[in-house]
Amino acid sequence: MKRLTLAAFTSSLIFSTTSFGSFANEAPATSSFSQISSSSAFSLAHEAVKQCEAKGYNVTATVVGVSGNVIAQLRSDNAGTHTLDSSRQKAFTAMSMKQPTANLMKLIAEKPIMQPLQTMDDNLLFLAGGMPITINNAVVGAIGVGGAPGGHLDVECADAAIKAVL
Amino acid sequence: MKRLTLAAFTSSLIFSTTSFGSFANEAPATSSFSQISSSSAFSLAHEAVKQCEAKGYNVTATVVGVSGNVIAQLRSDNAGTHTLDSSRQKAFTAMSMKQPTANLMKLIAEKPIMQPLQTMDDNLLFLAGGMPITINNAVVGAIGVGGAPGGHLDVECADAAIKAVL
Amino acid sequence: MKRLTLAAFTSSLIFSTTSFGSFANEAPATSSFSQISSSSAFSLAHEAVKQCEAKGYNVTATVVGVSGNVIAQLRSDNAGTHTLDSSRQKAFTAMSMKQPTANLMKLIAEKPIMQPLQTMDDNLLFLAGGMPITINNAVVGAIGVGGAPGGHLDVECADAAIKAVL
Amino acid sequence: MKRLTLAAFTSSLIFSTTSFGSFANEAPATSSFSQISSSSAFSLAHEAVKQCEAKGYNVTATVVGVSGNVIAQLRSDNAGTHTLDSSRQKAFTAMSMKQPTANLMKLIAEKPIMQPLQTMDDNLLFLAGGMPITINNAVVGAIGVGGAPGGHLDVECADAAIKAVL
Amino acid sequence: MKRLTLAAFTSSLIFSTTSFGSFANEAPATSSFSQISSSSAFSLAHEAVKQCEAKGYNVTATVVGVSGNVIAQLRSDNAGTHTLDSSRQKAFTAMSMKQPTANLMKLIAEKPIMQPLQTMDDNLLFLAGGMPITINNAVVGAIGVGGAPGGHLDVECADAAIKAVL
Amino acid sequence: MKRLTLAAFTSSLIFSTTSFGSFANEAPATSSFSQISSSSAFSLAHEAVKQCEAKGYNVTATVVGVSGNVIAQLRSDNAGTHTLDSSRQKAFTAMSMKQPTANLMKLIAEKPIMQPLQTMDDNLLFLAGGMPITINNAVVGAIGVGGAPGGHLDVECADAAIKAVL
Amino acid sequence: MKRLTLAAFTSSLIFSTTSFGSFANEAPATSSFSQISSSSAFSLAHEAVKQCEAKGYNVTATVVGVSGNVIAQLRSDNAGTHTLDSSRQKAFTAMSMKQPTANLMKLIAEKPIMQPLQTMDDNLLFLAGGMPITINNAVVGAIGVGGAPGGHLDVECADAAIKAVL
Amino acid sequence: MKRLTLAAFTSSLIFSTTSFGSFANEAPATSSFSQISSSSAFSLAHEAVKQCEAKGYNVTATVVGVSGNVIAQLRSDNAGTHTLDSSRQKAFTAMSMKQPTANLMKLIAEKPIMQPLQTMDDNLLFLAGGMPITINNAVVGAIGVGGAPGGHLDVECADAAIKAVL
Repeated sequence: MKRLTLAAFTSSLIFSTTSFGSFANEAPATSSFSQISSSSAFSLAHEAVKQCEAKGYNVTATVVGVSGNVIAQLRSDNAGTHTLDSSRQKAFTAMSMKQPTANLMKLIAEKPIMQPLQTMDDNLLFLAGGMPITINNAVVGAIGVGGAPGGHLDVECADAAIKAVL
Repeated sequence: MKRLTLAAFTSSLIFSTTSFGSFANEAPATSSFSQISSSSAFSLAHEAVKQCEAKGYNVTATVVGVSGNVIAQLRSDNAGTHTLDSSRQKAFTAMSMKQPTANLMKLIAEKPIMQPLQTMDDNLLFLAGGMPITINNAVVGAIGVGGAPGGHLDVECADAAIKAVL
Repeated sequence: MKRLTLAAFTSSLIFSTTSFGSFANEAPATSSFSQISSSSAFSLAHEAVKQCEAKGYNVTATVVGVSGNVIAQLRSDNAGTHTLDSSRQKAFTAMSMKQPTANLMKLIAEKPIMQPLQTMDDNLLFLAGGMPITINNAVVGAIGVGGAPGGHLDVECADAAIKAVL
Repeated sequence: MKRLTLAAFTSSLIFSTTSFGSFANEAPATSSFSQISSSSAFSLAHEAVKQCEAKGYNVTATVVGVSGNVIAQLRSDNAGTHTLDSSRQKAFTAMSMKQPTANLMKLIAEKPIMQPLQTMDDNLLFLAGGMPITINNAVVGAIGVGGAPGGHLDVECADAAIKAVL
Repeated sequence: MKRLTLAAFTSSLIFSTTSFGSFANEAPATSSFSQISSSSAFSLAHEAVKQCEAKGYNVTATVVGVSGNVIAQLRSDNAGTHTLDSSRQKAFTAMSMKQPTANLMKLIAEKPIMQPLQTMDDNLLFLAGGMPITINNAVVGAIGVGGAPGGHLDVECADAAIKAVL
Repeated sequence: MKRLTLAAFTSSLIFSTTSFGSFANEAPATSSFSQISSSSAFSLAHEAVKQCEAKGYNVTATVVGVSGNVIAQLRSDNAGTHTLDSSRQKAFTAMSMKQPTANLMKLIAEKPIMQPLQTMDDNLLFLAGGMPITINNAVVGAIGVGGAPGGHLDVECADAAIKAVL
Repeated sequence: MKRLTLAAFTSSLIFSTTSFGSFANEAPATSSFSQISSSSAFSLAHEAVKQCEAKGYNVTATVVGVSGNVIAQLRSDNAGTHTLDSSRQKAFTAMSMKQPTANLMKLIAEKPIMQPLQTMDDNLLFLAGGMPITINNAVVGAIGVGGAPGGHLDVECADAAIKAVL
Repeated sequence: MKRLTLAAFTSSLIFSTTSFGSFANEAPATSSFSQISSSSAFSLAHEAVKQCEAKGYNVTATVVGVSGNVIAQLRSDNAGTHTLDSSRQKAFTAMSMKQPTANLMKLIAEKPIMQPLQTMDDNLLFLAGGMPITINNAVVGAIGVGGAPGGHLDVECADAAIKAVL
């Protein structure tokens, strides 16, 4: 059995060039992924909450891995209950769509025909505050922040945390 | 271990000024919250239903605590089944976002880019009728009313109940 | 057709005039409701499906009682799976809001500020095809039809069934 | 205490004696049922909470109508969050199955073959603390209590409330 | 009674003998199956309700098609709300597992190691009252009955309905 | 390619012309359906993924049968987690509504009054990328593709797969 | 309006001694409670993960506040996805029932009649690894750990974290 | 920023030896893991279905990646609807717990105190038929098979597929 170590997300499309009848024997049995480490995820979530608290915003910050599952989630003392979900969904969305949620938010506002995107998956949220985390050209996770009085302020905390930690 | 009694929601941000490496030892281990008492919540829900019934509206009134969980819920004889959910969600929203839901309803109508707020959490509802309950400058819970023929009428019952009871 | 005469939904609001401190002893312990009978509900759902099939539409028809729970549901051979949910939700909505869903559909289209109504409860659907069933001035249930190529056609089948059966 | 006399749940089975081909025309179009009034439901829930608090138990008490939907729900200051669900489910179960939940709890313990009852519906809970409310031989609703340190203690509060209020 | 003769569920396994590399071109593009017709499903559910009502049992009867989706569901006037779910799940289970649910109920009771079956899918219920509907050696749907005071009584109504209608 | 010839979806409406009082005896007990075979569904999903990968798009392709349940689902190495849901929902929608989802997407954009369609069923999604699979004038299933940078590109992969396989 | 600062969870039952007719005016409008601070919650979760990793166990640790909502959640690099839910539910259970989950686990094993506890609420889990966090005789939150090869090992990490941090 | 390529699941615990105050700067920012490739997942699922069909069993086979999300899912023509969920949950369980589900099934049967495991997560299922897929000592995914008349037969198909494909 052959196996290749692929640079995740930048791999050439070996799969699609493998002939159908025999691909089980010749295609690589595994692909490899980079994911933000648990320790970095903790630091990021912690730093994002601190950045927002320094400005007087009570938020939740959530960091997810490449599949969109939570690695770290931290909530300020007075952050609303809904920020648990909003920050997690922003992170999920940024990861699964590999874009800042602010971009997607604009897309929907400008192209109303895209509004059904909002009903696609309960884990998706098209509000600013979700940022993919990119290391060596691979998206290795995402961070979402919710609870600041304005999505652009959530973004600022997320950005500042990424700069401080990674 | 140190411990501080904080005036909830008005506390200075002690957390963010605590140094990272040692905050576990020096930051306060607990924060304190004020929450509407069970007895006041019962009275509020009861009064809101009475206020609406006096006007001929069959409603449900729900009072939630600071985490958005129900403390009291009361439904009129002929209120539609959906008012259980609508009143609870209005209360949850007013509490978690610390604003009357009527304000949030206007915000979304005026800024369509904010429409994805509606998909953020199944417990959120951006229709008039949810009011934060503020005592001594702290939001200690919220009331939601649903079922009157117009959200502004739901608000009137909620307001009248707050004035009568607190 | 025989019909029991009942006072539900037209009762004066005894509750709201009962004094608070003693209402437990003096207010009526029960209220009474009229609900469409099981046999009539079966006939209505069956007739609505027949009416639509006669026109070549494959639908589901659902009849609910006063709490919005299903009493009868019938699906045509080739009706899409989603019509189970759509017809039930139309019936729930018409019952719980005591209005034809077509009216509510127009309301939302004309007043965009009311759009959050759509997220209020998973059982609500603001599309034409749900009709309250009124007998002796009381709403005793509702019927919902889904699957015709146009909500107004769903309404026609529902209307025709009500006329034929009740 | 006044009480409207109604025939629900004791009606003879007119339906089953109606011939199939014509039942739509001859069976009664509606059936009537009695349901605990909103005011009595509030009194019952309130009294059950008081009874438990007097003994030092922090509980939620929920009263549901004949369809199992909440009419009144009241929670003590320190009752666990899960008591909202547990009390509601006990009430739903007692109403829908028209038996005290303590009986059903014993049934399952004695006949393990009945254990799948527990997976039948998310609204069902087979623990002591749910009691049907019977007036004039009709089950007009149910009360559920959750949070006392033992289901039999939940039952005591429910029983005492029924005796005190109805 | 007329019946279309169809080969579903008795077809030989053409698929598994098709070679992998080329199956797209040589295997049949479609398979066919027989499903109980809407009209028969209605008759079955109606008859099952009548059979139970004649014995004084208030039940819901649900008939599902080969995928387990509802075709007909009918509820007696006083059947508990939970019978909507219980009858539907019994029908789903009998269809998807192609066995009477009473057999599966015994299996779990006798082999406790099989208890996790109960958590496999929210649509499954291992209580007596679900019966596959077999025509010409093909399972074309299933009926589930819930609400009689004993699963064997639910079965009797289902059996009697199948005999009377098919 | 071999294909069984079946009459599903083109049958005349025997049901609606059967007299009510006696239809149980005279209407056909079953109807028959053609459904895309398991082997063809596998090939279609596989081919759609290959088509997209050849263009550099990481997608999930899902093929459903006539009831909207999954027969085959395949996800590219780097396709976002949300594409599992989006492709499945597109396929469900195309099947249940018997139209390409791109048509329905346009309908909602052009007629805002139809927006509540989006809340009708969690399985529905009104974005391009879902295509009914029609064989011998019968819709025998549907394919949905999600993850390409634009719904029209999802459609291209689905179309190409249908042409290549069927 | 009067207001009392109550020592949460140890308060005398003022409510129940307040006369019914007037309790709205005389009972305290709010109650106060202590909750583990965000900073301590983060430290606790972090320490629990470290304690487990030092022993070679990959876990998730979750800390919840008094309502059972997450304040901090941290997952090791290789902890299974299910540990997100299991650790959160253990923490919720320990908080809402104010007992270590290991005690409740034993209770159910010894008294099979209590097995329905498991179906009471989706947030409850009766496996060892959840511990209430008590400060000054008040339960101010709870920690749950999941993923170690044995619930008693999850408990050890939780215990060690509480000792190290508080 | 440092970064390490770790052999997933066999890595030494670098994290836990990193000092707390500075781990953000010195611990590796990412971890890497191997996951079964999309092409191998398809082959595995396809082969498992074929193996079962050759024995006359109609099953669904599902292959998940390291986070437990579906990569490939294939269902035989006549496999019951519930096999979609059962096979997926078996695969999820084998992956998340890194053991064959047959082992876990025995564990619960032998130690009844472990029964609450069944309520831990809706994605878990403790029935035979789920197998971790291990390559180079790392668990890179899992396969689940459901629908054979006995879990040990599901296992045989899964095992045979793993042998044939990897």
